[in-house]
Amino acid sequence: MNFNQRFLSFTRQQNSLLCVGLDPDPKRFPQTLKRDADPLLKFCTEIIDCTKHAAAAFKLNFAFFEAEGSRGYAVLEKLMQIIPPNVLTIADAKRGDIGNSSDMYARSILQRLNFDAVTVNPYMGSDAVAPFLQWPEKGAFILCLTSNPGTRDFQYFSDGQKKLYEKVTENVTGWNGNQNCGLVVGATQPGELEKVRTAAPGLPFLIPGVGAQGADLETAVRNGTDPAGELALFNVSRGILYQSAGDDFAEKAGREAEKIKDQINDIRKAKINAAAN
Amino acid sequence: MNFNQRFLSFTRQQNSLLCVGLDPDPKRFPQTLKRDADPLLKFCTEIIDCTKHAAAAFKLNFAFFEAEGSRGYAVLEKLMQIIPPNVLTIADAKRGDIGNSSDMYARSILQRLNFDAVTVNPYMGSDAVAPFLQWPEKGAFILCLTSNPGTRDFQYFSDGQKKLYEKVTENVTGWNGNQNCGLVVGATQPGELEKVRTAAPGLPFLIPGVGAQGADLETAVRNGTDPAGELALFNVSRGILYQSAGDDFAEKAGREAEKIKDQINDIRKAKINAAAN
Repeated sequence: MNFNQRFLSFTRQQNSLLCVGLDPDPKRFPQTLKRDADPLLKFCTEIIDCTKHAAAAFKLNFAFFEAEGSRGYAVLEKLMQIIPPNVLTIADAKRGDIGNSSDMYARSILQRLNFDAVTVNPYMGSDAVAPFLQWPEKGAFILCLTSNPGTRDFQYFSDGQKKLYEKVTENVTGWNGNQNCGLVVGATQPGELEKVRTAAPGLPFLIPGVGAQGADLETAVRNGTDPAGELALFNVSRGILYQSAGDDFAEKAGREAEKIKDQINDIRKAKINAAAN
Repeated sequence: MNFNQRFLSFTRQQNSLLCVGLDPDPKRFPQTLKRDADPLLKFCTEIIDCTKHAAAAFKLNFAFFEAEGSRGYAVLEKLMQIIPPNVLTIADAKRGDIGNSSDMYARSILQRLNFDAVTVNPYMGSDAVAPFLQWPEKGAFILCLTSNPGTRDFQYFSDGQKKLYEKVTENVTGWNGNQNCGLVVGATQPGELEKVRTAAPGLPFLIPGVGAQGADLETAVRNGTDPAGELALFNVSRGILYQSAGDDFAEKAGREAEKIKDQINDIRKAKINAAAN
């Protein structure tokens, strides 16, 4: 099964479009956890355990693991052993380099660590992205329009016909021979999200920006899903992880994840019903 | 001292513009090394030891260390302990993410691992790059025009006035308040290298593409250095690392590094002499 089929299969089986972002920041860990032998591992393990019923995917932000060096990297390896097989795993690593280096990154992330998908930066062009697409069952979410303020610097750069992010969308559509390309499109620019959805109707989207980054969930779900209310994952990291600074942090995270999952599903239903009427 | 001053000071003290790229590929290690307890560490240690007299900088390609997971990451940590303080250390990690994630990457690479500089991908814009520029003595080489075939896909995208890589050059010049910005400009497109040098006369360049990637060294040095024959580092990885598949690999690498260092210096001298006449 290629990645884009797997994407649909996972989200349908979990009946969820929620991606739980693991951006574990030790400064925000509950006090009790700080006395643990490995607070990073403990925090993530408990979060995974309490949110896995509501999540279609876990997105592991490599920056937060590399922050603790080889020890943090080892935690990443351990977490990949405990995430249940019914939840997609996305390496939020934003890699991209010349061919032989990208190939090393791809093997490391998609084979050795065995992630289902990885985020990739397109700046260096097709040969920097291709190694991440060599296994049809593994996917790459290519940065298109990101959710941060700096998107305006280069992603909006225009040739008069189209902006750079639209050019990226166009090229990625052409790289999708293995049916395993996806796009990262931020929810913080809902009009553009809708445009990219129209330009790439068959690609799965990874949509950051709801939650701590402030984008409106309802608009994001309406604009980011396909007409069937599918093909999108909505990432929430800080908005789930830090619901409580007490011992009940994981339990509260689980409840919040479930709440957001249900909200997303309600909006999807409303969208489909509105289209049917 | 800010990074750009340090850059000049290191290259002058070593009388070298050579950057030795550590892209250690176990498939190309000498047979004898494969029986070592940690071939990756052993290979890099010996290469560093035999090339450090000729190098102004070591560029560690993170892809090749991450390929071995947390164990490879631990090798990276060990190597940072043994590289002598008179040689610059560049983390070729090509990172870049939203502000709080980039901040984690920056702290990990420039503080925890204590690299002097890091390569950064500009696609996500200023707030993704800024965290790498927060310590004036530490530098960021921002991808401008890379050395691979895929440069044509997006870096040449033009608004009719300028191409994306020229827009990146322009913006980076504006981000240089701490005097610690550099650019990655490939030697494989010598005409463009010359244009970027003119557009950013005061920025240090990290120039890949000579060696295995085939660019002409003489043209690269003429076009990539400033009028004083400075402010550039020429990276050679495979062309130095794999000079021999025998036990003399490090010795041969050392001799090749010295040869390239001298070639670069001869071209610099010729350039300055020609300008003086």
